[in-house]
Amino acid sequence: MSYETDNNPQIRELALTVREFINTHAISLEHTLRADAHGIDPDVRSQLQAAAREAGVFAPTAPVEFGGLGLNHVAQAVILEESGRSLLGPTAMNCAAPDEGNILLLDKVTTPAQREKYLAPLARGEVRSSFSMTEPTPGAGADPDMLTTTATKTASGWSINGSKWFITGAEGASFSIVMARTDVGATMFLVDADNPGMTVKRSLDTLDSAFSGGHGEVVFTQCEVSDDSVLGEVGQGFKYAQVRLGPARLTHCMRWLGAARRAHEVAVAYATDRPMFGTQLSSLGMAQQMIADNEIDIAASRALIHRAAWVLDQGHAARKETSIAKTFVAEATYRIVDRSMQLCGAEGTSGDLPIAQIFRDIRPFRIYDGPSEVHRWSLSRRAVRQSENNILPGDWA
Amino acid sequence: MSYETDNNPQIRELALTVREFINTHAISLEHTLRADAHGIDPDVRSQLQAAAREAGVFAPTAPVEFGGLGLNHVAQAVILEESGRSLLGPTAMNCAAPDEGNILLLDKVTTPAQREKYLAPLARGEVRSSFSMTEPTPGAGADPDMLTTTATKTASGWSINGSKWFITGAEGASFSIVMARTDVGATMFLVDADNPGMTVKRSLDTLDSAFSGGHGEVVFTQCEVSDDSVLGEVGQGFKYAQVRLGPARLTHCMRWLGAARRAHEVAVAYATDRPMFGTQLSSLGMAQQMIADNEIDIAASRALIHRAAWVLDQGHAARKETSIAKTFVAEATYRIVDRSMQLCGAEGTSGDLPIAQIFRDIRPFRIYDGPSEVHRWSLSRRAVRQSENNILPGDWA
Amino acid sequence: MSYETDNNPQIRELALTVREFINTHAISLEHTLRADAHGIDPDVRSQLQAAAREAGVFAPTAPVEFGGLGLNHVAQAVILEESGRSLLGPTAMNCAAPDEGNILLLDKVTTPAQREKYLAPLARGEVRSSFSMTEPTPGAGADPDMLTTTATKTASGWSINGSKWFITGAEGASFSIVMARTDVGATMFLVDADNPGMTVKRSLDTLDSAFSGGHGEVVFTQCEVSDDSVLGEVGQGFKYAQVRLGPARLTHCMRWLGAARRAHEVAVAYATDRPMFGTQLSSLGMAQQMIADNEIDIAASRALIHRAAWVLDQGHAARKETSIAKTFVAEATYRIVDRSMQLCGAEGTSGDLPIAQIFRDIRPFRIYDGPSEVHRWSLSRRAVRQSENNILPGDWA
Amino acid sequence: MSYETDNNPQIRELALTVREFINTHAISLEHTLRADAHGIDPDVRSQLQAAAREAGVFAPTAPVEFGGLGLNHVAQAVILEESGRSLLGPTAMNCAAPDEGNILLLDKVTTPAQREKYLAPLARGEVRSSFSMTEPTPGAGADPDMLTTTATKTASGWSINGSKWFITGAEGASFSIVMARTDVGATMFLVDADNPGMTVKRSLDTLDSAFSGGHGEVVFTQCEVSDDSVLGEVGQGFKYAQVRLGPARLTHCMRWLGAARRAHEVAVAYATDRPMFGTQLSSLGMAQQMIADNEIDIAASRALIHRAAWVLDQGHAARKETSIAKTFVAEATYRIVDRSMQLCGAEGTSGDLPIAQIFRDIRPFRIYDGPSEVHRWSLSRRAVRQSENNILPGDWA
Repeated sequence: MSYETDNNPQIRELALTVREFINTHAISLEHTLRADAHGIDPDVRSQLQAAAREAGVFAPTAPVEFGGLGLNHVAQAVILEESGRSLLGPTAMNCAAPDEGNILLLDKVTTPAQREKYLAPLARGEVRSSFSMTEPTPGAGADPDMLTTTATKTASGWSINGSKWFITGAEGASFSIVMARTDVGATMFLVDADNPGMTVKRSLDTLDSAFSGGHGEVVFTQCEVSDDSVLGEVGQGFKYAQVRLGPARLTHCMRWLGAARRAHEVAVAYATDRPMFGTQLSSLGMAQQMIADNEIDIAASRALIHRAAWVLDQGHAARKETSIAKTFVAEATYRIVDRSMQLCGAEGTSGDLPIAQIFRDIRPFRIYDGPSEVHRWSLSRRAVRQSENNILPGDWA
Repeated sequence: MSYETDNNPQIRELALTVREFINTHAISLEHTLRADAHGIDPDVRSQLQAAAREAGVFAPTAPVEFGGLGLNHVAQAVILEESGRSLLGPTAMNCAAPDEGNILLLDKVTTPAQREKYLAPLARGEVRSSFSMTEPTPGAGADPDMLTTTATKTASGWSINGSKWFITGAEGASFSIVMARTDVGATMFLVDADNPGMTVKRSLDTLDSAFSGGHGEVVFTQCEVSDDSVLGEVGQGFKYAQVRLGPARLTHCMRWLGAARRAHEVAVAYATDRPMFGTQLSSLGMAQQMIADNEIDIAASRALIHRAAWVLDQGHAARKETSIAKTFVAEATYRIVDRSMQLCGAEGTSGDLPIAQIFRDIRPFRIYDGPSEVHRWSLSRRAVRQSENNILPGDWA
Repeated sequence: MSYETDNNPQIRELALTVREFINTHAISLEHTLRADAHGIDPDVRSQLQAAAREAGVFAPTAPVEFGGLGLNHVAQAVILEESGRSLLGPTAMNCAAPDEGNILLLDKVTTPAQREKYLAPLARGEVRSSFSMTEPTPGAGADPDMLTTTATKTASGWSINGSKWFITGAEGASFSIVMARTDVGATMFLVDADNPGMTVKRSLDTLDSAFSGGHGEVVFTQCEVSDDSVLGEVGQGFKYAQVRLGPARLTHCMRWLGAARRAHEVAVAYATDRPMFGTQLSSLGMAQQMIADNEIDIAASRALIHRAAWVLDQGHAARKETSIAKTFVAEATYRIVDRSMQLCGAEGTSGDLPIAQIFRDIRPFRIYDGPSEVHRWSLSRRAVRQSENNILPGDWA
Repeated sequence: MSYETDNNPQIRELALTVREFINTHAISLEHTLRADAHGIDPDVRSQLQAAAREAGVFAPTAPVEFGGLGLNHVAQAVILEESGRSLLGPTAMNCAAPDEGNILLLDKVTTPAQREKYLAPLARGEVRSSFSMTEPTPGAGADPDMLTTTATKTASGWSINGSKWFITGAEGASFSIVMARTDVGATMFLVDADNPGMTVKRSLDTLDSAFSGGHGEVVFTQCEVSDDSVLGEVGQGFKYAQVRLGPARLTHCMRWLGAARRAHEVAVAYATDRPMFGTQLSSLGMAQQMIADNEIDIAASRALIHRAAWVLDQGHAARKETSIAKTFVAEATYRIVDRSMQLCGAEGTSGDLPIAQIFRDIRPFRIYDGPSEVHRWSLSRRAVRQSENNILPGDWA
């Protein structure tokens, strides 16, 4: 349970270790991030991951059998929030998107052979991966039913054709989980990076720049894979996407909450130190309002994340709870970072403080893993269904 | 713990009983509320309280020794939210302000004699009470230090002089807890309604109208009370105010969340039934956005209330947690009711639906028990202090 | 032109006269408004109108031939804003809804006989009128095409059948302009109050209470009217509704801006006088933010109103401009009043200040004359059409 | 007058010419902007300016004697909005900050010799300039009174010492207008770029990147200048800053409104073309709400800009009007660009559309030329003063 976990001495101890790790190892390397390139140097990544293993904070969400910490969702809420205080933290601790979500999915769906080939090295941080779902117009995006990439049965396996874009981590990933349409429904495939039918056409120039491998446009041209490459069962792609989706959107919330908290920390420190109009900035009412609103948004975000994590830990799909958390947290963390920037004035828009980088990187979170609008549409339909079935809103069953 | 309590079969059973009680007994009498008078007829109140006793839902926060249910804060969060679905619910169940907060305070601070004389009949619903704190300009309001009412030591006790206003429930209360300034600091006194020195000068004409006894202007003129009338110790008035304040503002949140949920229920049902532009209102995107925003605000409000309640149950003062919950919930529930009204169009502004009455009654909650601005000021100062002490914001200790 | 008009000495002089009139005559009678009844006593109304005639501020929008001032739209923007500083102002000056809009419509569409019978006494303030358009579910509301009231041709005229509600001013009006569906399309009829086929079934209990005659539910049962009762041509009802709609929604904006400004004036005076936390409330940053936001909302509202008025004065329909002004002003004036209430604390929610009454009366403006959502839908469709036609948004032609 | 100017055939013709120029010349070169460097290549700049001269749209705000168009403020509102549709437009047309504001200031304050030496080549686009005002903590920023840079009288002139930062255009400027503190008050100096006492220490890495010359940190070390270098009179620096400030913040508003409109155009076109959930994105209610809110924010921004411009054209300082316009427009244009990005989904965050670049460049506008908070503080104080003097808010004198 959430609040017990907060007080759980082991988790608390681990959280303080992560905080120390982030402060010592990750923050000092943030200057290597650049607006014009994505992620960090692979060598820096290796060095950071080694330090995380050393500190005992590596792979908090991965199975214990592969060296992970195997935390439940509520404990993840505490630890991943701490990891997110630096944009390099999740990479260092191997709990960054999309690898973290892929680890979860592969842990639930793979065959033993796939487990050994794909999950093991991924969990250990030896390789990176991607998740190829989103497609250029008029393909799958906010509306996944518009999936256009196809997989056709061949004598020896499958042939995949189509285009994907905004594939996070594509450049440099050793394999991708690819969603394609087959005769019997959407299906997921494991495709190796050296498959000649899969090409990273370009890396998109995006507002954010902290994801390792950036966001690629990936083209599949007669991309031949064997039957062993099917992840789980043929035709069950959307079902597995759901397995991955709820927890993965929640870990995004956790990490971004940490990033927003960092921006807030920097802004509070700035406002405390900054003389202005004969007093400190932090004594001016409008600044106080921004600081307080940040505190409120942090508390509400965390409360919604913990609630959804707890429902997941009870074994439920938590569709409603993760949808609410994702929508609220994506908007609230953005507000926090925006207010933090405003508090720091011109300096906040510059590389002299970490806020501008966080600002650029957090904005797209209102769009990926379901834009706020799609979540609201879904939440509204659910509310109406409950009304029709005479299940009152707010029922806590 | 909160989530366990949600799943606690006994609390869940009690909540369903309350829901049934509200639907059956309270909602049917709401038409007796009027914009031009306050609260309900005393006979209707007695009738409702008898029904609540019968249903086993009476006095959920009061001590068991006086027939209350003695629930902890987390269980209160579940039950008082349900009670709030009707503006008459808390009155019927004897968990309305200010009596509910006064019961809490008297339970913690009274002498045995005071306990018998004041707490017992109040907990049993035989009498009503008031809490005389707020004063006309330039007295105590958002800034309690501006307290101007005085209590002067006399041979036989104390003489109280001063003016109070917005004293909820004043008209018809059998006693009042009165805050006054003495030589050694603010002190609370128990003053009987028949004391000739205490007069309810008028009942204020306010936007809200569902509180029993309305909001009175109360004048103290050489109001003589004995030493036995001191509540707790002389000079400890602000300390006791704090004892009352945290939990009392949280029960306000619980009740108003229930009221907001009711408005939302009505609006969702309306939107589901209402044909418009060739479809149902509930199928139009802008309506869906309002419905979803209500769902999100309900979830975030509840999560913050439960969190603060849990911290109170651990024995902490929960100053920060109740302050955050109060600020967020007062604003979020208002938004919910406002959106619900907008969804129902002209009908929503009329007495044909319960929303307009809830709208009028919920608006002042952003002001009483600390205006949002004072809470934000306090939250900001706390954040700055933590920054100075190198305690990071978001520390969950 | 708007700004010239601002500087036009005659209009400026008239505005100052109106300000003086409102301060002297209207504000002093506001205490007669009550939450549980609508409008003011007919005798008080007569007395106020006499004073307005005396002051030379009567009927600013009505034709000169009937004693009105015949102002153009831009001059109306200045004068009606001033009139709105008291909720009694527009009634006193005979420029309140719905009479003011009906005068405009009758001036454009009536036959000479109708002009004499209906327009003349209405413009002179001798009678009141109503506009019967909105219907109970599932009739005409936000979607006017859902019109269900019918008018069937008879030997001697027409027989009207159907129900209307939220008919402002119904109680006490001497006639109503009634929209009904005929074989050849929606048609407007002039129906006398003493027609036995038209009954005011009830006066709705609504959040607002300052409109003379309240908001009635009006039932038409074999309501027989002569052919002379048709307003304009049969089948042209929606066209005439448009004639009335644009200007009428703009005069609403003008009056409500005046009301919001009044709330702001009261709040600024309160904040200037109110000591708090060792200074004045008006020196605290969060209060300053509310005051400044009010100033900004007032300026933006006024700028949009004047722009739309100017376009109307050029002879255009100003559909887009009045739609933008209505949406923005309805929301902005509501925010202004809400902030003003928050600034005044508990006192702001009481009848000791005029804000609570304005708050109740202004809220429905986001709903009537087209809910904000319907205006946004229309604005969006227009923007898309312009994009398709390669007319750039913001074209000032 | 504003609206007449809108309809003024010459201005309208010029606006269409600018639109054509931007579409043809500026937009096609936007891909040369990069997040990691500032502004555009000097050669590209020259090429664009030549094209602007050719098209007759060069230097719309500069005096006619130097080849400018010499437009009044209201005409500027129309033309500079059009210029802003491309981030390269103002540079191409020589109406970008800070040169445009410097031209205005130099036109009002210089000696004939300074006019020839500094203003003439600047107005002709032969050189760039900077305005050195803002200082690192604890110097002048939101609070200009904290000015720390000093100018000390020497035998032959003045010696300037201090640090400035966020000096837009510093890198590559041929001179700077420098604000420094002297014995008799703040004073402005004209300092040539080749003065050995003035060094551009670094170019700041900022969120925005479209300003030519970026934002520099500039250090003055015994920077010796002659008496001829004083701009206007010694001790009048803040007065001249005000001369520049009002109009300069308004031209910022005009240009950014154009940029926001461009983002909106792109988003509307995207939403019109994008299939989703079985229809077009532009037919979904939540998308329609964003499009409509953009339309409203554009209209309100433009109305406030034109109003302030008209007041400036009447010869007033327009302190209140420009302050309101700056605050509203900086926030409204940001909202417009943010919504436009959300409408375009992932693509909106990428370089495939121009929105992400505009988003990065427009965010700091809520901070420079007075943060929103400082403007609100000033507006509130003015409102309170007017209240105290019994000048009613909203007075249009």
